[in-house]
Amino acid sequence: MLTRMSSLFLRTLREDPADAEVPSHKLLVRAGYVRRVAPGVYSWLPLGLKVLRRVEAVVREEMDAMGGQEILFPALLPREPYEVSNRWTEYGPAVFRLKDRKGGDYLLGPTHEELFTLAVKGEYSSYKDFPVVLYQVQTKYRDEERPRAGILRGREFVMKDSYSFDLTDEGLSESYRRHRDAYIRIFDRLALDYVIVAATSGAMGGSASEEFLAECETGEDTFVRGPGGYAANVEAVTTPAPPPVPLDGLPAAQVHHTPDTPTIETLVDFLNAHGTRTFTAADTLKNVMVKIKPPGATEWELLGVGVPGDREVDMKRLEASCEPAQVALLEESDFARNPFLTKGYIGPGSLAANGVRFLVDPRIVTGTAWVTGADKVDHHVVDLVCGRDFTPDGTIEAAEVRAGDPSPDGQGVLEAARGIEIGHIFQLGRKYADAFGLDALGPDSKPIRITMGSYGVGVSRLVAVIAEQSHDESGLIWPRSVSPYDVHVVVAGKSAELLAGGEEVAAELEAAGLSVLLDDRKASPGVKFADAELVGIPTILVVGRGLAEGKLELKDRATGERIEIPRDGVAAHVSGIVRA
Amino acid sequence: MLTRMSSLFLRTLREDPADAEVPSHKLLVRAGYVRRVAPGVYSWLPLGLKVLRRVEAVVREEMDAMGGQEILFPALLPREPYEVSNRWTEYGPAVFRLKDRKGGDYLLGPTHEELFTLAVKGEYSSYKDFPVVLYQVQTKYRDEERPRAGILRGREFVMKDSYSFDLTDEGLSESYRRHRDAYIRIFDRLALDYVIVAATSGAMGGSASEEFLAECETGEDTFVRGPGGYAANVEAVTTPAPPPVPLDGLPAAQVHHTPDTPTIETLVDFLNAHGTRTFTAADTLKNVMVKIKPPGATEWELLGVGVPGDREVDMKRLEASCEPAQVALLEESDFARNPFLTKGYIGPGSLAANGVRFLVDPRIVTGTAWVTGADKVDHHVVDLVCGRDFTPDGTIEAAEVRAGDPSPDGQGVLEAARGIEIGHIFQLGRKYADAFGLDALGPDSKPIRITMGSYGVGVSRLVAVIAEQSHDESGLIWPRSVSPYDVHVVVAGKSAELLAGGEEVAAELEAAGLSVLLDDRKASPGVKFADAELVGIPTILVVGRGLAEGKLELKDRATGERIEIPRDGVAAHVSGIVRA
Repeated sequence: MLTRMSSLFLRTLREDPADAEVPSHKLLVRAGYVRRVAPGVYSWLPLGLKVLRRVEAVVREEMDAMGGQEILFPALLPREPYEVSNRWTEYGPAVFRLKDRKGGDYLLGPTHEELFTLAVKGEYSSYKDFPVVLYQVQTKYRDEERPRAGILRGREFVMKDSYSFDLTDEGLSESYRRHRDAYIRIFDRLALDYVIVAATSGAMGGSASEEFLAECETGEDTFVRGPGGYAANVEAVTTPAPPPVPLDGLPAAQVHHTPDTPTIETLVDFLNAHGTRTFTAADTLKNVMVKIKPPGATEWELLGVGVPGDREVDMKRLEASCEPAQVALLEESDFARNPFLTKGYIGPGSLAANGVRFLVDPRIVTGTAWVTGADKVDHHVVDLVCGRDFTPDGTIEAAEVRAGDPSPDGQGVLEAARGIEIGHIFQLGRKYADAFGLDALGPDSKPIRITMGSYGVGVSRLVAVIAEQSHDESGLIWPRSVSPYDVHVVVAGKSAELLAGGEEVAAELEAAGLSVLLDDRKASPGVKFADAELVGIPTILVVGRGLAEGKLELKDRATGERIEIPRDGVAAHVSGIVRA
Repeated sequence: MLTRMSSLFLRTLREDPADAEVPSHKLLVRAGYVRRVAPGVYSWLPLGLKVLRRVEAVVREEMDAMGGQEILFPALLPREPYEVSNRWTEYGPAVFRLKDRKGGDYLLGPTHEELFTLAVKGEYSSYKDFPVVLYQVQTKYRDEERPRAGILRGREFVMKDSYSFDLTDEGLSESYRRHRDAYIRIFDRLALDYVIVAATSGAMGGSASEEFLAECETGEDTFVRGPGGYAANVEAVTTPAPPPVPLDGLPAAQVHHTPDTPTIETLVDFLNAHGTRTFTAADTLKNVMVKIKPPGATEWELLGVGVPGDREVDMKRLEASCEPAQVALLEESDFARNPFLTKGYIGPGSLAANGVRFLVDPRIVTGTAWVTGADKVDHHVVDLVCGRDFTPDGTIEAAEVRAGDPSPDGQGVLEAARGIEIGHIFQLGRKYADAFGLDALGPDSKPIRITMGSYGVGVSRLVAVIAEQSHDESGLIWPRSVSPYDVHVVVAGKSAELLAGGEEVAAELEAAGLSVLLDDRKASPGVKFADAELVGIPTILVVGRGLAEGKLELKDRATGERIEIPRDGVAAHVSGIVRA
């Protein structure tokens, strides 16, 4: 059905909205696609809703094609299932909670693991029922601390979330692979520039979790990649361990009086001023004290984390490594309770002596020698050799990752880049099946605990991500797969002849199965052209003075290229371009 | 894309759910269309979601065809606009309220008048912009006191709500008429049996508000209709007034001592036992005391409501007549504060003497004589004549409506029926435009206050309403317009030949553009037939023993009719039936 701009509920804005920082936010508001209702809460105006629905359609088609079955859960959810999974408590302030008129506790679903698990448990019981993949395209809620960038990080947003239910780990791997392939098709159809990054260090084995990141300077996620194709988010980067060094012939450890050297910097300066060798921060071993609390535990437990002194501990990497345990830096009171910890001079010795677990960066291998604390104020030990003078309890990925670090795949060095998460695939395993007792009765009548995968696409966010990657200074530039209309017909003039000509052209295009936005307004051609650029439909057809000679102008929004085409056969011509 | 029951996420139930009372609830649960998550909160399983989407599509097509433009508001709404309209307070416990992490007040939108008004105010400013019709298909929330009947009255539900914005009352009438026509098309396409009833007594003039009620014995709404086509919900019924009676020659009023007659029944018994005439309850005038509070008022005001003694006051009718004022029955304390009110013996005299407004049923016209209270314990007055002995301040529609009452259109008498509200169209006027200052700048540069219409369709409820009207003891019977699939192909047997035959038939039907559910399960034909009846796809094609002789069986779910058709040309044959 032809849409005329004279009656379309659209008013473009010449000015950027005051609260907008990123291009997609500015342009989606200026071009009349979305409007803000509250922080992180937006309305979709006609053009925006069309793009949203087209993105949804692409997601749905690929999910159906990979065998997913669509269902729809409510957004208003009772507390009980989230109590079972313990997420009612774990979620903290990021979840919207409310009470109904009878005082019952409810939440607005941020994710639906519990409901999917219960749904399968409710319907299925036999091993013959599995595997199954269920998905929904649904409005979700998250009370973000800092909603930002318009619909890029909203508090009410549309997600496609799906879950796979398998009898075996191999089945889960296969479901995961099929989702991965479907996501590649989805993001390719949306013409996105994206990378697939490892999202965990692989504690669960292999690529148990990957994120799809749209490359974008304004992105909130940092990731690294190497020239050989390696890509990972920072939390997932693994540090290649150097080969161990033979212990024979290494100098003995010596304790030195190093007054006023509680920091790496003061220590290195002191050593270089008072010794015969030259030290750098990389020669020192920094022992950072944290405490961890495994799920279900009531007490915090001390943990020493040893990293080369030229690197900080990256709390996000540390947290990812400790999951599902919580982790926190020690407070003054913790030091007070553990007087064997000599702040600024902590060494592996006191940790071992007091039964504190000590995990080190993978670079700290047997035979490497370190300057580190001597567990005594103003004293450090030099040439403390790993595997000879101390034995760590294991390794941990906690040190910061830097551009220039060697790539874990052994090919070249890492570079850092920024992206926006558009998809996440994750081998969830049996966490929720365990919580809810989701079993299938096997052929031998014994129960088989189901293993699950979790897969998400940020559908409404994708509208902003596409805008973020595809725009110029004049406005939006939609890929054909999601453009609100196929063709924008601009009547460049106010005469009755031109208007009639535009209507005829538009009708012919519609008859050929193209969707058309006709600018039939009584505005100047300049205003109309500027709006066409801003609105961003990829093909602009100008009905102007040339019409009298049977000519129209066709403009490609992305390249700016203009060509003259004959009025006769316009539908075939434009169809050929749109459907190319 | 062909759906196979062997992998469809569907398990039918043989038993009715324990909490289900109405057929649609029982059958939608048993046939695996919906599942309960919390009171009034449901999940849609694959078949249910398909029907819901098809209903949505019908609604959308007709809304687009009548010129509506689709937008989408959030469900999570800030308090402020609802403060402006005063509905934050007025809504009471029927609205879900919540706070965000910063303590801001939010609600889950039950209706979106405020947002629509603000949206138009935000984009439009000139008289040239109007009229406009905006709509959304959206998930809404209402904390019903008694959610019931499955998705028929849920707390989370899908509605199509639209609003028209016009410069003039005539424009509003036209927008209203176009919505009315669109709704007729929608409900006709959904094959519903429905009536359009007047929803207000016409205080705003003409048919300012009408409800579309699906006729249904289990419906919550009572309506009446006459043989001449008149139909109204009970609140909207107007009472025809009899002609006035000349006052000349009417007997004078006489006060009688009528001990122990505080009720109509005791009064009539006393009069008939002690007098020479015969009285019925219809000869008495019952004066019911209520109090009303207009919007914005702080004090309640007394109101006397006089109705013939053979009828009760219908509180819903009284409330509708008093709107937007609140109305309540008097409490003991009110009587105590107004000692001139002699409970059980109240007459028009004391009301007039104490300045209490007195409104009467339209049947109480000049010249009618009544037995009523004499404002003195144990005393009544007989032959108190309206227009001679007392003068009401006006009339009010408050008396109950009964089957057998004369139809307001003068044709025959009313009968009562029950229905479920499926649509409501309403000339809202300038209430919200006034609250938000929604004006258009006129051609003379003077502001024109916009007038609005409000129009709703209960989309998810319609799925239940269709089921309620279209089922039998074996299961659901979907109209073709919303059936989850066009054809249900049942392979009646487990042999490889039959299964292959079923697959081929299904593929041919799909190739012809029909959507097919193929029952390829390893179950007995009996189980499959029972499930096909329960699921309710209108056309069932059985691939059974006849296949060897090139024959299939085609069953019409609604009529139960079975015919044998040739295997060859099956797609053309079935298409002809489905698309008839």
